[in-house]
Amino acid sequence: MSRVHNFSAGPSALPLEVLIKIQSDLINWDGNGMSVMEASHRGESFTRIAEKAESDLRLLLNVPDNYHVLFLQGGATLQFSMVALNLAKRNTIVDFAITGGWGKKAAKEASKYNQVNIVCDSKDVNYTTIPNESDWNKDSEAAYLHITENETICGVEYNFMPKSNHIPIVSDMSSSILSREINVSDYGLIYAGAQKNIGPAGLTLVIVRDDLVGQAAEDIPSLMNYKTYVDSGSMSNTPPTFSWYAAGLVFEYLIDMGGLSVIERINIKKSEVLYQYIDQSKLYYNPVNESCRSRMNVPFLLKDKSLEEKFLYESNQAGLVNLKGHRSVGGMRASIYNAIGIDAINELIAFMDKFEIKNI
Amino acid sequence: MSRVHNFSAGPSALPLEVLIKIQSDLINWDGNGMSVMEASHRGESFTRIAEKAESDLRLLLNVPDNYHVLFLQGGATLQFSMVALNLAKRNTIVDFAITGGWGKKAAKEASKYNQVNIVCDSKDVNYTTIPNESDWNKDSEAAYLHITENETICGVEYNFMPKSNHIPIVSDMSSSILSREINVSDYGLIYAGAQKNIGPAGLTLVIVRDDLVGQAAEDIPSLMNYKTYVDSGSMSNTPPTFSWYAAGLVFEYLIDMGGLSVIERINIKKSEVLYQYIDQSKLYYNPVNESCRSRMNVPFLLKDKSLEEKFLYESNQAGLVNLKGHRSVGGMRASIYNAIGIDAINELIAFMDKFEIKNI
Repeated sequence: MSRVHNFSAGPSALPLEVLIKIQSDLINWDGNGMSVMEASHRGESFTRIAEKAESDLRLLLNVPDNYHVLFLQGGATLQFSMVALNLAKRNTIVDFAITGGWGKKAAKEASKYNQVNIVCDSKDVNYTTIPNESDWNKDSEAAYLHITENETICGVEYNFMPKSNHIPIVSDMSSSILSREINVSDYGLIYAGAQKNIGPAGLTLVIVRDDLVGQAAEDIPSLMNYKTYVDSGSMSNTPPTFSWYAAGLVFEYLIDMGGLSVIERINIKKSEVLYQYIDQSKLYYNPVNESCRSRMNVPFLLKDKSLEEKFLYESNQAGLVNLKGHRSVGGMRASIYNAIGIDAINELIAFMDKFEIKNI
Repeated sequence: MSRVHNFSAGPSALPLEVLIKIQSDLINWDGNGMSVMEASHRGESFTRIAEKAESDLRLLLNVPDNYHVLFLQGGATLQFSMVALNLAKRNTIVDFAITGGWGKKAAKEASKYNQVNIVCDSKDVNYTTIPNESDWNKDSEAAYLHITENETICGVEYNFMPKSNHIPIVSDMSSSILSREINVSDYGLIYAGAQKNIGPAGLTLVIVRDDLVGQAAEDIPSLMNYKTYVDSGSMSNTPPTFSWYAAGLVFEYLIDMGGLSVIERINIKKSEVLYQYIDQSKLYYNPVNESCRSRMNVPFLLKDKSLEEKFLYESNQAGLVNLKGHRSVGGMRASIYNAIGIDAINELIAFMDKFEIKNI
């Protein structure tokens, strides 16, 4: 079997160019006589990789000098705890906007240490919208405001930047980072698990404003304290070197593509084409409020649910894989991160259309 | 340049057979039409990999049924905190045997939560020995006894198993796991960062007796609680899939080699040959007490320190790389984990001998 189109929500497709480079490097990387996996993280060659990955990411996102870029482990889930332990004193108030399952989990972890104030929760409409900011119930004393920029399960994404009012905005950008241009200065802290738009699972990216580092309590584990990573260039202990290297290759690839302005235009096009097809269809539908549909995760349901298994079987046979929706909502979901090209979208639509004609 | 002999202390050399398999799988793994890095951790194909890695490890180490095998992130350093937070109630006594820099760091993290009782500390002899157990000052009420089975910096390794007296023994086996046969039942918990004898950095292995799981306080981060990993098959959030896969290939390779009894014999031979050469030399010496010399990390100093830079330069030119000792002790160190064959030892000795003849 040749390469498939992989619509997995994460870990997800990586650019073929990046995989080819990894493959060619694998046994003897850049003339070092070893794999990058075998290299000491403190050696010159790996240090160059690590530094270039950071500077390329800074270039891509135009990260201001007063922000640190950190390379961690533990995924977004560990950030649910780290944000709470680093950015707020015990039992103070923290604001959470809940627009899906991930934000809910983040709030639950924070509630172990802080008083969580839910500023909005779209549960009553099954997380198919982002509530208007004018209806949010923010606390003016909150240590931070946490949002989940894109919720992968139901496929909702912010189309506005909440007003900060001097309260740092913390954003889980696991599934939207590098998909579009952002203004880093709008945020206090951004975090993202790597396994969607950055690289292989096992790496977590944190971008944090420098005044937010160094406030954590003394008794938290060293590796839960952002300061440990700031002070050591994310190398207080052995980092996930291979994932860091692969992420660096993805950053280079995105720069070569023309940077995030180009990537954003492609992502707008990809998602528009797919939503337009779904909206005109007699078989498929997407329940999300049009104004906040995700550009990265496109769930779609079949009006005739009995066709779901057949759809999954036949799409898989056609080389369009991992289209099953999250177990909590059912249906289908096409995750169309950066590595999914417009060709894959076109093939998916062609398949969906043929399936619709055959089955209704 | 062809492949070098890589004596790095970690991340370290991997078996060439494993790297060749990874390379051949990289773009289209086992006919799945994608890289293993792109696969969903909840998909059937990755589930098989994850389960086989666990069962192969259980086979290699003969892990009893009442022990869980967990695949985590964060390295041994995160275990310094997790052990303390999971295995002891706040402010209770925990025993630590300090035989090098890593054990010292582990004790420091534990001291945030527990009363650390140092049962022995070989600092006065620069960590060149393991103090006799008869001289240890154990506390009969300790929640656990922590040892560092092999200290990579000074190169000391236990040649005995401490008596437990019903107190669980916790061992940092980062640099000795899979280097020899062990009796898992002797331990309450074993942990190891992957980047020496297991696979790429970013994966941490924990083997824990089932009665030690589930005692942690409610308010610790979910990902710091062993129970989270036990309950979810180490998949409560996205695990480091690629490192897990690579570790599985290493386990298969070790089984194919004949298992740990064979590996142990090879490691005994490798280290004996190298220490014997060093001991008879007029230029090199190893300061460690003969009875507890590490089979994995062989530090050696030059009697004429002014030759160190020259030694490092010339050995590197000869394709014998990463021989520089840890910055805290200086000199040289050959880390000779499983992937370093007897051929590499022989080449190293031949180089050392030629260098000695030329320079003294």
